[in-house]
Amino acid sequence: MRLAESILAGNRRALARLLTWIENEDPRGFAELDALFPHTGKAFLIGVTGAPGTGKSSLVNSIALHYRQHHQRKVAIVAVDPSSPFTGGAVLGDRVRMRDLSGDPGVFIRSMASRGSLGGLAQATARVVQAFDAAGYEVILIETVGAGQAEVDIAKLAHTTLVVEAPGLGDDVQAIKAGILEIADILVVNKADRPGVENTERALRGMLELAHPVRRVFRHHGKSMVVDAPMTSDIETWIPPIQRTVATQGTGVPELVEAIEKHAQHLRENGDWDKRNRVRLQAELEDLLRETLIRQLRQRVPPETFERILDDLVARRLSPRAAAEAILSSTRATT
Amino acid sequence: MRLAESILAGNRRALARLLTWIENEDPRGFAELDALFPHTGKAFLIGVTGAPGTGKSSLVNSIALHYRQHHQRKVAIVAVDPSSPFTGGAVLGDRVRMRDLSGDPGVFIRSMASRGSLGGLAQATARVVQAFDAAGYEVILIETVGAGQAEVDIAKLAHTTLVVEAPGLGDDVQAIKAGILEIADILVVNKADRPGVENTERALRGMLELAHPVRRVFRHHGKSMVVDAPMTSDIETWIPPIQRTVATQGTGVPELVEAIEKHAQHLRENGDWDKRNRVRLQAELEDLLRETLIRQLRQRVPPETFERILDDLVARRLSPRAAAEAILSSTRATT
Repeated sequence: MRLAESILAGNRRALARLLTWIENEDPRGFAELDALFPHTGKAFLIGVTGAPGTGKSSLVNSIALHYRQHHQRKVAIVAVDPSSPFTGGAVLGDRVRMRDLSGDPGVFIRSMASRGSLGGLAQATARVVQAFDAAGYEVILIETVGAGQAEVDIAKLAHTTLVVEAPGLGDDVQAIKAGILEIADILVVNKADRPGVENTERALRGMLELAHPVRRVFRHHGKSMVVDAPMTSDIETWIPPIQRTVATQGTGVPELVEAIEKHAQHLRENGDWDKRNRVRLQAELEDLLRETLIRQLRQRVPPETFERILDDLVARRLSPRAAAEAILSSTRATT
Repeated sequence: MRLAESILAGNRRALARLLTWIENEDPRGFAELDALFPHTGKAFLIGVTGAPGTGKSSLVNSIALHYRQHHQRKVAIVAVDPSSPFTGGAVLGDRVRMRDLSGDPGVFIRSMASRGSLGGLAQATARVVQAFDAAGYEVILIETVGAGQAEVDIAKLAHTTLVVEAPGLGDDVQAIKAGILEIADILVVNKADRPGVENTERALRGMLELAHPVRRVFRHHGKSMVVDAPMTSDIETWIPPIQRTVATQGTGVPELVEAIEKHAQHLRENGDWDKRNRVRLQAELEDLLRETLIRQLRQRVPPETFERILDDLVARRLSPRAAAEAILSSTRATT
């Protein structure tokens, strides 16, 4: 029996093996993924991102636990650490603490660390999510450590994106929030039992009001109606609610999951669910094309030609654009 | 007189216009950059990165001030904010506070925010750095907000990379440090007048000892000698020193700049200076090739063909790999 069939039959060890192949870019993984692909497209993908120190891992664990206990859904967690080229050990450390999830056969947790290029990590994450989707995991939580563009790119995989904040995290946290607000479907103030929670929520609310016109232009192509109460939501426009949680105690988690489910329903009702699926697959297709084209070019250009042109670039005899042109025209001359 | 000539003659307004063209990907910028390229390769590029709240901006300002006052070098600052697709306003806000630099004609400060893809931002940053280099700025400080892979990629532009840390920044800062340590040439504990500075420095020192074998494998292709005193440095291997600063008061900045200059000298002596230049230009060349290839493909594939294949992908009739193959073979059929 091939691996894909074992995975479809619910074999966890087969799934674990495929995940390792994906991470290592082992060519055996591609054929299995091709066989699994027709079985994907059913899972609800939830992205969770935010700055360090916000308690994202605990929050992800408590959301997973809630989906297990109250919705009986199979849950996968993909913990991605773009800043760690080593092991993802820190993320794993957090995982070990989560006793309530370990041993539950309806939960699968996988940590991923960056190896080489960031583009590679986003692609590998997309493939891991597809493997979980095909294997019947109904809710897939994609957690990223950090709050830079890398995390934004990975969050784009999701149907619903949570941006997590916490009180009292230093003086230029503001800068992060401004940029990341655009991708937030739901804002979470975690560690809400800490001093300063009112300030954090007020700051988020203020930025939300500022950011909202921008957000609407991005998502709704320029409709510019005025919104009086930025905390309400309707079918036309989704305005990110702010949810308070204390993840380590489970406080606020039921309400947060309710907001998540509401957002999923909103996406389905206005057609954005399908639109986001399409955008995600288009991005994956374009990444694959880019990768294939550069690989084909490498096969056609002899290394000594490449090095000679690079020498000219380093010596400033060619500009970067002229060097690229020289490499491309060298392949046209030989065919 | 064309813009490039004005820039070479020291005209700040001409330089500012080119920087705007670069940021907007205005095609007029490319020809000017081509004309400037032979004049690049002289500047010392210093990358500064680290988590939010470490006081990077103040540190960059104080390094710039030191280079102005004690080394009489022309200094440019490129402040990159990958997490902000909006305005980079927060970074600009920090800049305004720096009275000591404003009005000095030997200083040029530019903030850049992400527009669209991250790859685009790294490319634009590389071009802005080239413009400053050609314009005669001898020290170029490249500051990134955040500490994810995006920042790592941008830091790779530099000859010397500073990773900034500060005491008491929340509980999963550890995770960030582990990943980012690999790119650090110098570690800075800023806000060193705060409580907890000993702990921060001890943690860094511990991670440095752990990380060091890995670091050597990466940079020196697998030599695996044992280092007894990880704080010493010699010609063979550079072991990142840890420098304490209080940037807002200038404390520790002269010693930090001394360590920076020592690293530059180390790079020149062991040939890594040229090696880093070459790696940087090769990365730029490969990005350009990737971009050109995908643009050429877009021109050759009719939009309706692309959409039809994407439909098949979304409907799971084709896997991503099969869809990419279908698009590539459609162009082969038509030529």
